[in-house]
Amino acid sequence: MVKRTLPLSRVYRLLEPGPVVMLTTIVKGRPNIMTLSWHTMMDFEPPIVGCVISNRNYSFDGIKASRECVINLPTVELAEKVVGCGNSSGRKVDKFKVFALTPAPAARVKPPLIDECYANLECKVIDTRMVTKYNFFILEVLKAWIDPAKKLPRTIHHLGKGAFMVAGETIQLPSRMK
Amino acid sequence: MVKRTLPLSRVYRLLEPGPVVMLTTIVKGRPNIMTLSWHTMMDFEPPIVGCVISNRNYSFDGIKASRECVINLPTVELAEKVVGCGNSSGRKVDKFKVFALTPAPAARVKPPLIDECYANLECKVIDTRMVTKYNFFILEVLKAWIDPAKKLPRTIHHLGKGAFMVAGETIQLPSRMK
Repeated sequence: MVKRTLPLSRVYRLLEPGPVVMLTTIVKGRPNIMTLSWHTMMDFEPPIVGCVISNRNYSFDGIKASRECVINLPTVELAEKVVGCGNSSGRKVDKFKVFALTPAPAARVKPPLIDECYANLECKVIDTRMVTKYNFFILEVLKAWIDPAKKLPRTIHHLGKGAFMVAGETIQLPSRMK
Repeated sequence: MVKRTLPLSRVYRLLEPGPVVMLTTIVKGRPNIMTLSWHTMMDFEPPIVGCVISNRNYSFDGIKASRECVINLPTVELAEKVVGCGNSSGRKVDKFKVFALTPAPAARVKPPLIDECYANLECKVIDTRMVTKYNFFILEVLKAWIDPAKKLPRTIHHLGKGAFMVAGETIQLPSRMK
């Protein structure tokens, strides 16, 4: 997928609608993928993102040790792979191989981008004070990529137990909000 | 709107798809409303929610002092009121009056439910350690309400600058995820 750089000031527009994301990390020298929905924007620029990575997940040790990850945004075409990654563990399988996903080199961090995802956010961990109690990592987005051809990405939004809402129509209202 | 109690174990299914929410607080003795999208689930049960309330918002002092709020979930029918609440300040207007929204008493906290919202989560602040640096409040949901008639709520999801994605179709995949 051919992507261009996305200005960091626009990253919030990707994450605040709440899409399911696929987080890539390096664990024990190998790239791993984790599916998650528990993330939030925390500041506009530089973009700060908070996310929960349970200490039961294989990715937890990876991000704790390397302090780097990539947040990859899939669309509905990838839904089966998204769920597959959520239902398997990097302890047992190489998810890039099993789900036929393509790792692409990142510019600023070691974990790979998932090429099939329409946007990718390269992140470093900047605050771990909430990790012990809440498994909550605070990240800064260093570099963002987007496929400019994807005008209205049909992101997926988890409703629990394998049900996903698919992004519908877009409406525009007069607003002074960012 | 006639609502029933929602089991706390199901609250995550409302928030993890990333809807715009309207937060009610008591500020200087009066109820106020704030529109926000920067929230995330942090634990299942009891449901723990993190959210950013900027210290520039009138609600900030209210929640800091009273340590209580209600997270109200609107659907697309309320979109104009949602944006209106986001574009005005409780310092200047009574948003319940200006936007013709109905305050309804909560069971466990002082801030009111917004009756027109299809779900309402009564919350107390349980952790303020991230407030000074990130304006990030950690909340526990004490009591949750839902309109059982709203089977597929058309929630709205902010894309920036007054554009909102409206919840589209729902798909079901075989999943072992919660």
